[in-house]
Amino acid sequence: MRDKQYMIDCGEGTQIRMRQMNVKTNRMGHIFISHLHGDHVFGLIGLISSFGMLNRTADLHIHTPNGLEQILSPQLQFFCEDLPYNVIFHTYDPKKNELIFEDRSVQVFSIPLKHRVPSSGFLFEEKPSDRHIKRDMIDFYNIPTWRIPKIKQGEDFVTDEGEVIANERLTTMPEKPKRYAYCSDTAYSEKLIPIIKDVDLLYHEATFMNDELVRAKNTQHSTAQQAATIALKSNVGKLIIGHFSARYANKNGLLHEAKTVFERTILGEDMKVIEF
Amino acid sequence: MRDKQYMIDCGEGTQIRMRQMNVKTNRMGHIFISHLHGDHVFGLIGLISSFGMLNRTADLHIHTPNGLEQILSPQLQFFCEDLPYNVIFHTYDPKKNELIFEDRSVQVFSIPLKHRVPSSGFLFEEKPSDRHIKRDMIDFYNIPTWRIPKIKQGEDFVTDEGEVIANERLTTMPEKPKRYAYCSDTAYSEKLIPIIKDVDLLYHEATFMNDELVRAKNTQHSTAQQAATIALKSNVGKLIIGHFSARYANKNGLLHEAKTVFERTILGEDMKVIEF
Repeated sequence: MRDKQYMIDCGEGTQIRMRQMNVKTNRMGHIFISHLHGDHVFGLIGLISSFGMLNRTADLHIHTPNGLEQILSPQLQFFCEDLPYNVIFHTYDPKKNELIFEDRSVQVFSIPLKHRVPSSGFLFEEKPSDRHIKRDMIDFYNIPTWRIPKIKQGEDFVTDEGEVIANERLTTMPEKPKRYAYCSDTAYSEKLIPIIKDVDLLYHEATFMNDELVRAKNTQHSTAQQAATIALKSNVGKLIIGHFSARYANKNGLLHEAKTVFERTILGEDMKVIEF
Repeated sequence: MRDKQYMIDCGEGTQIRMRQMNVKTNRMGHIFISHLHGDHVFGLIGLISSFGMLNRTADLHIHTPNGLEQILSPQLQFFCEDLPYNVIFHTYDPKKNELIFEDRSVQVFSIPLKHRVPSSGFLFEEKPSDRHIKRDMIDFYNIPTWRIPKIKQGEDFVTDEGEVIANERLTTMPEKPKRYAYCSDTAYSEKLIPIIKDVDLLYHEATFMNDELVRAKNTQHSTAQQAATIALKSNVGKLIIGHFSARYANKNGLLHEAKTVFERTILGEDMKVIEF
């Protein structure tokens, strides 16, 4: 978002995929961990270690439910003793829906999920950006450069003659701030709906198809139909489904099942890039 | 070897590659770790965890220099608490060249290497197999089935009339036992030569090309030319080079450099299968 990178979860092999995709990581300062199951954290130690070999100097922040630092620290001490940068852990409460991080561009909220261990999704809300200035109006009224930041934020301009030029004449609306919600791993839970309502893009896990509804319930996962139902009831722009059980070599059944409920569904696949 | 699988080192993503290659793991009981650097062990926790999800029941033995169990145990306790099988650690002394494991098929010896931390290569020596029986001779002398195991091991056969049939008439030589040596990571060290002399196949690291000889020395790694020199002086059958620095996007230079010294060199690449 806005030229910055945020990582959500870090399974084994994440750094390998990133290298394959030529992802530059110098603008990645924050990693958000949804819950402490291996398939969501086993890639962290390798990533942190490789960042060290690449001589990273910027702090790396890891936002996580309680417990990860105690598990990772012995490995960090043993394998990464001369790390040229700091790894800083921030714990958040996965039972609460609250602001857990913000910077100039974005706010991140936790989304309590329903899983076998404390788990949280993340809602990324872009902050409103400045209004766009109309170049020709600036020239027409001969507006000095130092006034521009305030005008971008919505102020009117007053000429030397005292004439008030309304901000709407000088600027156009900024793009609508984008919202992205990530919900994995979770059983079907309508408690998500008010939190993720109207997001532009929703990632929702869909571990099983609906014929495995009982297994989904027992393991506290969702089916593709359930994921799509949450998307529909939350009125989201698009839905990405993922976290598929290894039993589905072919994912078309999952996609079809979701699309039957919610047409604007995308199959989450390795290395897929989705712009929104 | 003989339908059994032995794993040497386990970097991040090993289990992912194995799945891609459809490697069955039920005959893999022993993993040998050469040294405790992340790129040789970060894949263990994911592999162990996935074996659990696949309901493995057979013990898994990990042969390692001292220290790995202390690092892995907290992760095993946290991420793999209900593992349906045992993970058993065996420490060996990487400073000694000695037998560290044997079963019916193979003996494994440690090979002290020269690296920044205690490191060891591994020599896999197949045990001699039984002599091959000549089917037609068994029929000709009407040899009862219960005598056959001894004959395969080299015994002569005595007929009811007291005639001695020399074993060479009844059997043919078994294949020559195969020997494979794995040496990574290591600086150039001629101390390896007597240990790995005449092996059928040698894996030797070649992190750099020879124009980076100083860097190779400083980081206690080898160049492709050095790896090939060890292969030549050890009179090995074939050499595999690997563990290349990320600076070499194209590996042809490394291969060419090694082949100039030792023609029978193979480039170690992801998912390559080499029979010998």
